[in-house]
Amino acid sequence: MSRKKRILSGMRPTGALHLGNFHGALSNWVKIQDEYECFFFIADWHALTSDYENPGNITEYVKGMLIDWLSVGLSPEKSTLFVQSHIKEHAELFLFLSMITPVPWLERNPTYKEQMIQIENRDLSTFGFLGYPVLQAADIIIYKAEAVPVGVDQVPHVEITREIARRFNHLYGKVFPEPEAILTETPKILGLDRRKMSKSYNNAIFLGDDEKTIFTKTAQMITDPDRARKSDPGNPDICNVFDFHKMYSDSGLVREINEQCRIAGIGCVECKKKMAAGLSRFLEPVRERRVYYEERPQLVADIVVTGGEKARKTAGQTMEEVRAALKI
Amino acid sequence: MSRKKRILSGMRPTGALHLGNFHGALSNWVKIQDEYECFFFIADWHALTSDYENPGNITEYVKGMLIDWLSVGLSPEKSTLFVQSHIKEHAELFLFLSMITPVPWLERNPTYKEQMIQIENRDLSTFGFLGYPVLQAADIIIYKAEAVPVGVDQVPHVEITREIARRFNHLYGKVFPEPEAILTETPKILGLDRRKMSKSYNNAIFLGDDEKTIFTKTAQMITDPDRARKSDPGNPDICNVFDFHKMYSDSGLVREINEQCRIAGIGCVECKKKMAAGLSRFLEPVRERRVYYEERPQLVADIVVTGGEKARKTAGQTMEEVRAALKI
Repeated sequence: MSRKKRILSGMRPTGALHLGNFHGALSNWVKIQDEYECFFFIADWHALTSDYENPGNITEYVKGMLIDWLSVGLSPEKSTLFVQSHIKEHAELFLFLSMITPVPWLERNPTYKEQMIQIENRDLSTFGFLGYPVLQAADIIIYKAEAVPVGVDQVPHVEITREIARRFNHLYGKVFPEPEAILTETPKILGLDRRKMSKSYNNAIFLGDDEKTIFTKTAQMITDPDRARKSDPGNPDICNVFDFHKMYSDSGLVREINEQCRIAGIGCVECKKKMAAGLSRFLEPVRERRVYYEERPQLVADIVVTGGEKARKTAGQTMEEVRAALKI
Repeated sequence: MSRKKRILSGMRPTGALHLGNFHGALSNWVKIQDEYECFFFIADWHALTSDYENPGNITEYVKGMLIDWLSVGLSPEKSTLFVQSHIKEHAELFLFLSMITPVPWLERNPTYKEQMIQIENRDLSTFGFLGYPVLQAADIIIYKAEAVPVGVDQVPHVEITREIARRFNHLYGKVFPEPEAILTETPKILGLDRRKMSKSYNNAIFLGDDEKTIFTKTAQMITDPDRARKSDPGNPDICNVFDFHKMYSDSGLVREINEQCRIAGIGCVECKKKMAAGLSRFLEPVRERRVYYEERPQLVADIVVTGGEKARKTAGQTMEEVRAALKI
């Protein structure tokens, strides 16, 4: 029996998850659970790196995120689901890796440079923000993960992780595999206003939204901007609602909408309602699992304790090797 | 009963301790054990900040340092003696403090600037080296230490610690006292060659040196450089051996040497032997305690376990307050 490759991925708990998070990461995680040995963690310490002044109630966000994860079908039987801050070993390895990571590696990290320019009004120039790729490296290699599923913008982080792992192995003897980035193809999903779907843009459909909310929100979606009146023919190729149809409606309906829209055979209001029905149906099993877990808080608490124990065991074994290599 | 003020201090385990370490710090620690509630720790993680490529066998150095400490009279009954790496909470707090510490605070740390210039041939520009004042701050405030005994060159570090504690309290609510620096007056003690006594200069008299070694080493000491022959009168005011006499010989002998040297009534060889006898006598109780503890490795191991448990309890309570303040 060939061993499954080990994968690690995580998310910052910053609030309720939406369709963008689902298609950008979660749907892929659910798929790869059978193919890989998966460690998925809630990166609560990372929630402090970029918004340390107003982190919100991270404890509450962590609980919400776990429910979101379970609701989309992440399975505690298949995968190890845990919370970063429950595994203190991440902090210890972060400390060790700090000692061997040259500051210039971090300063030339593209995400760092970009965020330093983009995000104003926040004192981002902290030691912890500069070092978050070091913490990320610790998160990954402490489980000896062989691969990390990422979007294309995250590839430089995996590269820094590989460099840090290589440097540790070079200085103290081989302990860590160098994890590979697995590029995840993700369908582009836009928010109600056609911008990137984001909680902070107030344009998101959340995984926990009920049917009524979905109908209300989708009714506000911006469609083909050139179609002023119902009697004008529309262009599905530039319509956000049609993109949603392609994801959530059956192929017959997609074909029908594509035809009828172009000849003004269907108005946007009706078209949106049909799409909302499909989206709501798509989210039905997610909502059902959510209800199941929300009614069982003890089960949810147990899941994260059990996941934490599994993670801690693996992390603890790695740290024993690390300390032996460092003779500390 | 008014509570004793709590003090914290530590040392990097980099090898056997010598007279310079004793007079520079340890003798003061032994004295203040009754006056303060003292936490003394072996800073093994810090041993990696400046020499991560060749840290040596830190585990062995830690054992040796503990014996050195006990031999000079640090008392596990009076003080909490522990090893930094046994208390993982230091790493966790280091991580949290990283998030709120602006990089410029660290870049303008005078010791950082100085060491970056002085120490060549070492890739000191690591993230961990830049951040060692953050780790130091965590070491100190995790015990809510109210004061830190330091030499004058360490005052800027205590100042950074105070600033970090203040910033945490400001952002998340008051958890930490701001520790004060207690300036320790230390007699200047030079090495055999009149340079600063240092293991790396090979000019040190170690606390564990036996009588024979002390006589051999002190025989090599540089005296008044203008006294070429025994028949020349000497000048005790510029003689390193005379400085040692003032520390280790009784006042009668000090007076006698002061007179006889100036009239060539005593030669350097004899003068050194008299001083060596006093020094050896001074170190006698230190050697006796060393033998006692070296013969009882289990006792030494227990001391550091017990100290670690006490430290962990205090650190753990602080971390509960920290996590509550951060809502994490």
